[in-house]
Amino acid sequence: MPPLEHYSRQLNYSYALGLYPAIQALEKAPQRVSRVLVHSLLEPGEGAQALFALCEEHGIRTETADRVLRKVSGKDNCYAAAVVQKENQELQLGRNHLVLVNPMDAGNLGTLLRTALGLGYFDIALITPCADPYEPQTVRASMGALFSLRVREYADINEYLKDAGERSLYPFMLSDSALSLQCAVQEKKAPFSLVFGNEGTGLPAVFAALGQAVKIEQSDEVDSLNLAIAAAIGMYSFKETY
Amino acid sequence: MPPLEHYSRQLNYSYALGLYPAIQALEKAPQRVSRVLVHSLLEPGEGAQALFALCEEHGIRTETADRVLRKVSGKDNCYAAAVVQKENQELQLGRNHLVLVNPMDAGNLGTLLRTALGLGYFDIALITPCADPYEPQTVRASMGALFSLRVREYADINEYLKDAGERSLYPFMLSDSALSLQCAVQEKKAPFSLVFGNEGTGLPAVFAALGQAVKIEQSDEVDSLNLAIAAAIGMYSFKETY
Repeated sequence: MPPLEHYSRQLNYSYALGLYPAIQALEKAPQRVSRVLVHSLLEPGEGAQALFALCEEHGIRTETADRVLRKVSGKDNCYAAAVVQKENQELQLGRNHLVLVNPMDAGNLGTLLRTALGLGYFDIALITPCADPYEPQTVRASMGALFSLRVREYADINEYLKDAGERSLYPFMLSDSALSLQCAVQEKKAPFSLVFGNEGTGLPAVFAALGQAVKIEQSDEVDSLNLAIAAAIGMYSFKETY
Repeated sequence: MPPLEHYSRQLNYSYALGLYPAIQALEKAPQRVSRVLVHSLLEPGEGAQALFALCEEHGIRTETADRVLRKVSGKDNCYAAAVVQKENQELQLGRNHLVLVNPMDAGNLGTLLRTALGLGYFDIALITPCADPYEPQTVRASMGALFSLRVREYADINEYLKDAGERSLYPFMLSDSALSLQCAVQEKKAPFSLVFGNEGTGLPAVFAALGQAVKIEQSDEVDSLNLAIAAAIGMYSFKETY
């Protein structure tokens, strides 16, 4: 087995760094965990017990690897890590999707993934260039949500549309001609995709032609809402009643 | 005039650090800006022009202060700052309030202030201990929203209630007995206060007795939504239709 490297986007694996993220990876996606690293200073306790029990249950190798943990985390106090294989997953056709066009902030992306999972959106399309969903910072900000979602990267929106099947598209935009979120929700037709632009620039005007443009009603006092906030409001308002 | 100090919570003034934040302070709360610092390397241009025009309009002193800017910002590339007097403002009785109980993360608080302003909530009660709304990082994360809002700190929730007048209270909690957000919104009675707990622990159970406890419908896949996300969904759903 080749030596583990400091994380980079080119690798076909990533790390869930820390005891809790490692446990989440083992709980949600054990088939993707190739091995688990533990530090000789990892304290015995509930967390460590859960970690070892999950490894045993799924036949996953654990190894004591102080030096490697320090190398891959850049920290002295990272006491556990799961090595997770990356997967460009298939999105499900009949489900509602969240489509993020060029999101560039890793922490924001992690928060968005966690929110999507919490609100019942399991299928996430990322249009590149974008922040790396597998960057350890994103994995951590997502609090493990990444391991419960289907996430797929696309070269551009047309590649996504080829995969998306028959569905309604709702690009979120600030343009005056967009329908208010409140009205759009009343006429929503599932399955649908909610489409959000980049943090700084939003969606280019051409995206309005994709489907029914939607804008979140907001005061004139701010230019726009933060991306993670806008997407959360959109996902909540559009979600299936339950 | 005493020399300006590096920011600390004890000071009765704070800084809007950077050209854009300084302009926002001058636009939204000129009466609270006591002076404006500029760096000798500040490039002439639209931004600088706007800054000087606002200072002239409101009779605010500008001074070139390279060393002070470096001292108060901790950076070499901070080219402008507004010195802003703090104010513990009066909340308006007839308006809807956002009440944050012990929010501890400065960046999160800044995002929340910006979201509140965007969704038309102008009155914010902070129950201490809490992150400092005037910390330059919060001011920056709020993108100047702080200067357009009425923000008041209270020692505890009872102090707030004394000030709050006759109103409906909606504590957001994860308890099973809480009403779903969707139902709560249908029965809402203005003026109201939306009450949110701390990032890590949420609201203590005793807050349910304050009014109608509300929970945001969410899947079992995540423990809870991020505070800024939950508050945004709550504020959007409860806001007046417009």
